[in-house]
Amino acid sequence: MTSVLHQEIMSQPQVIARLIEREREHIRRIVASLPPFSYALIAARGTSDHAATYATYAWAALAGYPVALATPSLYTIYGQPPRLRDALVVGISQSGQSPDIVAVLDEGRRQGRPTLAITNDGTSPLARAADHVIELHAGAEQSVAATKTYTAQLTALALLAAAWNGDRERMAEIERLPQAVAAVLEGAEQAAAARAERYRYMEQVVVIGRGFNYATAFELALKLKELTYVMANAYSSADFRHGPIATVAPGLPVVLLMPRGAPFDDLLALAEVLRQREAELLIISDDQRVRPWATTWLPLAVSVPEWLSPITTILPGQLLALRLALAKRLDPDLPRGLQKVTRTL
Amino acid sequence: MTSVLHQEIMSQPQVIARLIEREREHIRRIVASLPPFSYALIAARGTSDHAATYATYAWAALAGYPVALATPSLYTIYGQPPRLRDALVVGISQSGQSPDIVAVLDEGRRQGRPTLAITNDGTSPLARAADHVIELHAGAEQSVAATKTYTAQLTALALLAAAWNGDRERMAEIERLPQAVAAVLEGAEQAAAARAERYRYMEQVVVIGRGFNYATAFELALKLKELTYVMANAYSSADFRHGPIATVAPGLPVVLLMPRGAPFDDLLALAEVLRQREAELLIISDDQRVRPWATTWLPLAVSVPEWLSPITTILPGQLLALRLALAKRLDPDLPRGLQKVTRTL
Repeated sequence: MTSVLHQEIMSQPQVIARLIEREREHIRRIVASLPPFSYALIAARGTSDHAATYATYAWAALAGYPVALATPSLYTIYGQPPRLRDALVVGISQSGQSPDIVAVLDEGRRQGRPTLAITNDGTSPLARAADHVIELHAGAEQSVAATKTYTAQLTALALLAAAWNGDRERMAEIERLPQAVAAVLEGAEQAAAARAERYRYMEQVVVIGRGFNYATAFELALKLKELTYVMANAYSSADFRHGPIATVAPGLPVVLLMPRGAPFDDLLALAEVLRQREAELLIISDDQRVRPWATTWLPLAVSVPEWLSPITTILPGQLLALRLALAKRLDPDLPRGLQKVTRTL
Repeated sequence: MTSVLHQEIMSQPQVIARLIEREREHIRRIVASLPPFSYALIAARGTSDHAATYATYAWAALAGYPVALATPSLYTIYGQPPRLRDALVVGISQSGQSPDIVAVLDEGRRQGRPTLAITNDGTSPLARAADHVIELHAGAEQSVAATKTYTAQLTALALLAAAWNGDRERMAEIERLPQAVAAVLEGAEQAAAARAERYRYMEQVVVIGRGFNYATAFELALKLKELTYVMANAYSSADFRHGPIATVAPGLPVVLLMPRGAPFDDLLALAEVLRQREAELLIISDDQRVRPWATTWLPLAVSVPEWLSPITTILPGQLLALRLALAKRLDPDLPRGLQKVTRTL
């Protein structure tokens, strides 16, 4: 298998190791130099927006900062941005090119608020608009579907959380990530390859995570949409119970993101309900107890602390989406109708 | 047609008129008595979460307040709530029963922050947890799918925005809503009834709105899921371009929410792309210029100011979802696997 996407997926251990090495001290300096703020406002689109969703959990749980996701259209097509008093204003974008994300940082600076860009291009318009820039150092991402820049964004956000938190053990946990990412990729590759064919004619799929892995549900759903054109819907297990569970008919494939952690029991209870309704379960987990319930078992070969588990839990999903694209004879590097850099207002 | 759902949909002009009459002055007093805050943090699930999404636009554009959507699991299963300094803490829930939403308000009060509940039950746990309670006065909502309590929630949030804004014309615009809602319901009922049958065997659908009607896209998608079990996906037109547009194949039904307003041209440009890809367009609009592009045209018989248009734009969607449920011989009052009150942790 020689797709660029596969190479980029497999490069994630090195990308994350390089990011940690190059940005750890820089991020500590940024954190030390920021003025006080009460909450973070993050602007992002697509995959980067899922990284922002991770920050709503990681920054709140480890650093105590609530996170608001920006509504870029208020800054662009409406021209009515809100007052950003007490906010840290953050933009996340692989390319750093989308004008709506840049507009939010421009407004933050205009209002005298601290601004931070997280991007793979330190010379991009987004980087130029920000007081502080965290570069991903991921190398050019050639495949349209983002993989290595997503886990790199998560790692950058985790480094910020650990720096704010101050507990050295949190930073040590991040430093063990590259090894864990390598082990999970290796441990999931065979299962993803062996199981993808079963889903060749799947037309729709539901992906469910909760807490830290709420972001993973959205990111995996997007990978499946971009790479395999399947109509995928992402939910938290709580939101799913508030209505969308009505869509479950016998045979509906449901991906459950179940790394060990606080929401595990809640997802276990939902899995039982889904079994009763004869849904087909695809489970990504490091806990063998749920394996008998899975029609398709995508293992997390090693466990990481739950707050970092989004960085490993997405990996079997990336591999599954790639293998399913190949099973459908689609080009994983060039999804129909997409370009690598999307500029929206 | 005698379903409870139909009665509840048609009762919305009276519900909104009653809410305005009973709560307008009360809301002015709440606004006058709140201590200073920099942003609002809103906790909500399901339909109420879509009302919260409306607030992220209406409160920012009219009152200058950024809005963060709460992450209830941090308050419940993780036990790691963030610092809520400078926040107004808001809970929205029809029943006021879900423990995770109540937990966010409890935490706000514990941290000494002002708390506000918007609920249809003034004696509910959510109401008891809040400093200030805005009741919807919508009467008991018997149908599982929320309709009248959704537009009532939007109206309550609009009343707050108008009170903060202070311009009397904004309040006058709200007071003209009941008439507009009645006219839109009357003007859309025939089209919804006549067109529903075409979609009897539709298995998936995409719903797209932007800005103020981003919330409408999510709410209409949820109505279609709850009432007709169709796999519906909601997007902003911007997010849609950042990946999910790859899922568009010839014949895919796409609902475009196009009331007149700032995002209209952006949606028009997207409609052109979707036509080129041979998607089937269902358009909800008050602008006849886009009518020729619609395979199914669901009219907004009267126009309202864009900031209030989510209250009218959802109505043809509610009627379409109801009629589609009937075309599929499903009971619109009792969707499978759902209960009226959902309690999640």
